[in-house]
Amino acid sequence: MEFFTVASLIEPKKIIIKELKKPKIESDEVLIKVNYSGICGTDIAIYKGDYKVPLPLVLGHEFTGEVVEIGEDSEPELIGKRVTAEINNTCLSYTKRIKCPACRKGLPTHCLKRTVLGIMKADGAFAQLVKVPVKNIHILTDEISDKEGVFIEPLAAAIQTFELSKFEIGDKVVVLGVGRLGILICSVANSMGADVIAISRSKEKLKRAKKYGASKTINGNDKNLISKVKKLTDGLGADVVVESTGSKLGFNLAIKLVRPRGIVALKSTHGILIKDVDNTKIVVDEIKIQGSRCGPFSKAIDFLSSKKIDIKPLISEIFPLEQTEKALKIAPQKTKILIKCNLH
Amino acid sequence: MEFFTVASLIEPKKIIIKELKKPKIESDEVLIKVNYSGICGTDIAIYKGDYKVPLPLVLGHEFTGEVVEIGEDSEPELIGKRVTAEINNTCLSYTKRIKCPACRKGLPTHCLKRTVLGIMKADGAFAQLVKVPVKNIHILTDEISDKEGVFIEPLAAAIQTFELSKFEIGDKVVVLGVGRLGILICSVANSMGADVIAISRSKEKLKRAKKYGASKTINGNDKNLISKVKKLTDGLGADVVVESTGSKLGFNLAIKLVRPRGIVALKSTHGILIKDVDNTKIVVDEIKIQGSRCGPFSKAIDFLSSKKIDIKPLISEIFPLEQTEKALKIAPQKTKILIKCNLH
Repeated sequence: MEFFTVASLIEPKKIIIKELKKPKIESDEVLIKVNYSGICGTDIAIYKGDYKVPLPLVLGHEFTGEVVEIGEDSEPELIGKRVTAEINNTCLSYTKRIKCPACRKGLPTHCLKRTVLGIMKADGAFAQLVKVPVKNIHILTDEISDKEGVFIEPLAAAIQTFELSKFEIGDKVVVLGVGRLGILICSVANSMGADVIAISRSKEKLKRAKKYGASKTINGNDKNLISKVKKLTDGLGADVVVESTGSKLGFNLAIKLVRPRGIVALKSTHGILIKDVDNTKIVVDEIKIQGSRCGPFSKAIDFLSSKKIDIKPLISEIFPLEQTEKALKIAPQKTKILIKCNLH
Repeated sequence: MEFFTVASLIEPKKIIIKELKKPKIESDEVLIKVNYSGICGTDIAIYKGDYKVPLPLVLGHEFTGEVVEIGEDSEPELIGKRVTAEINNTCLSYTKRIKCPACRKGLPTHCLKRTVLGIMKADGAFAQLVKVPVKNIHILTDEISDKEGVFIEPLAAAIQTFELSKFEIGDKVVVLGVGRLGILICSVANSMGADVIAISRSKEKLKRAKKYGASKTINGNDKNLISKVKKLTDGLGADVVVESTGSKLGFNLAIKLVRPRGIVALKSTHGILIKDVDNTKIVVDEIKIQGSRCGPFSKAIDFLSSKKIDIKPLISEIFPLEQTEKALKIAPQKTKILIKCNLH
């Protein structure tokens, strides 16, 4: 194809479908024909205008596709391979770039010169074609379908929670908020040996959490929420509380639910400042609060391939690329919406 | 002596000097004749009424003394030994007590049944005599004088900062606030191989910080504070920021000064809730926030004995026990005030 279609966000809450000329790739890049893209909370926040980034922008950072064009640095065997790609374009992603202090320190996801696919200064995968550095791609295993592969990026983010917040087998892990990301975190924590307690205000989500690894569930509206968690945790509080509510109320509740010397793992990026944080309790109880973001793709691919998680039921609906805006509008009420980016 | 003198806090801002009958000790306790006690920030906060605890109470948890009476569980050689003692009276401190869930989990300083010497339900060392569990005592080495030994408890708290917040040799550690505790943290961090940057609004404190291990200092009133720290840290931010300001403004400033994947080590227990905490930045930059409190006495004794810190210049003044209230009133403006608890 000489031209390809993209869904471009030109201003908050306004997407246009347009044709672009096929992009030229550098020697260290590849061009991917996108099969499916997934809609994530960040896409919704950017679409709404809550999460501010330079526009216009083609959103979409969870995707699978097929390599259709390669630069000189790639082996010809790559053509036709089913792949996904890391979302951070860093100093390590490019052959000739001098490393920045963050990349030198071994922190490429915090690269000072990075662009982020579909989020910051790099057009994403709500498009027929997407261009990425070849060093960022990961080949899908035979066990992962094109639809399932869309979950690799969010699953990596779920795994990253526990890369930075280690726990022991049998530990009590509370997952506060079991939506799009929280449900994956339940499954990962359970597979790593935790005893998972899911908390949500939605009965439906709690029912689903049971299928995805939670051994117990508590309704978030329960007035005895804190004492119920204490009762389930030997009177001490949870070993780990994952704050994945996407709400400003999650932070302080998490601090009340965790045990002395326990961990509050933060995942929400709602952009809202938190009030009334109890600094003194954090010190006296020696609590650790750990933020985490993008994770290891290779581990997510291994986990998906192992079939320890049945990911398909989390797909709510599939829309064609032309209906991306409609899909973004209903996404907040759904778990995972996919965009089918090429008809053939 | 059949009777002994104590300084008893009977209500906020009111101390009376009184005589008490010598206490009976249990088989697992010892009686210590106190030489010197130190005044710490917690004592000041309790005296003022900001930090609320059950009263009446004899304050004082930093002290040295001499064992004058022992229970049946102790060896007779203990009599006459120069000692200090841990401040948490936990399940592990007593011979016959059944362990609580925290002590079972190896977290005795978070014991659910604990009393805390001079802080919570256990009379402390602003007194001629103090009773403690024998398991809590530590014998002073010959290198540590009675006056220097008073610093063992706060030095253990300074060391605990880095027990829970590990760093690498050469890492940039910002100490935000270099008062009573912060100055000890500078020295400990420097001795552990950190490159220490001290921040304070007081020129005098910054000058002193240079003597206690800071290689660089920045005035806290400097408008370019954040960019100066970035400049000193390769544009990334500090590897560790220790928040020991004792002020509500420290928390959010610390988050601005730390690098991605860095650590904010919290030490302040001012009891004030923090506003406008940037949850999203903590997640995106994958920051760790770690509270810490009481630390390992044995390490503090080794550090003091090694003479790597010249602790004596930190003693501002010494008051007799009868003038405890006067001492508490001027303590906020001083570094370390000692109380001489026995004249002979």
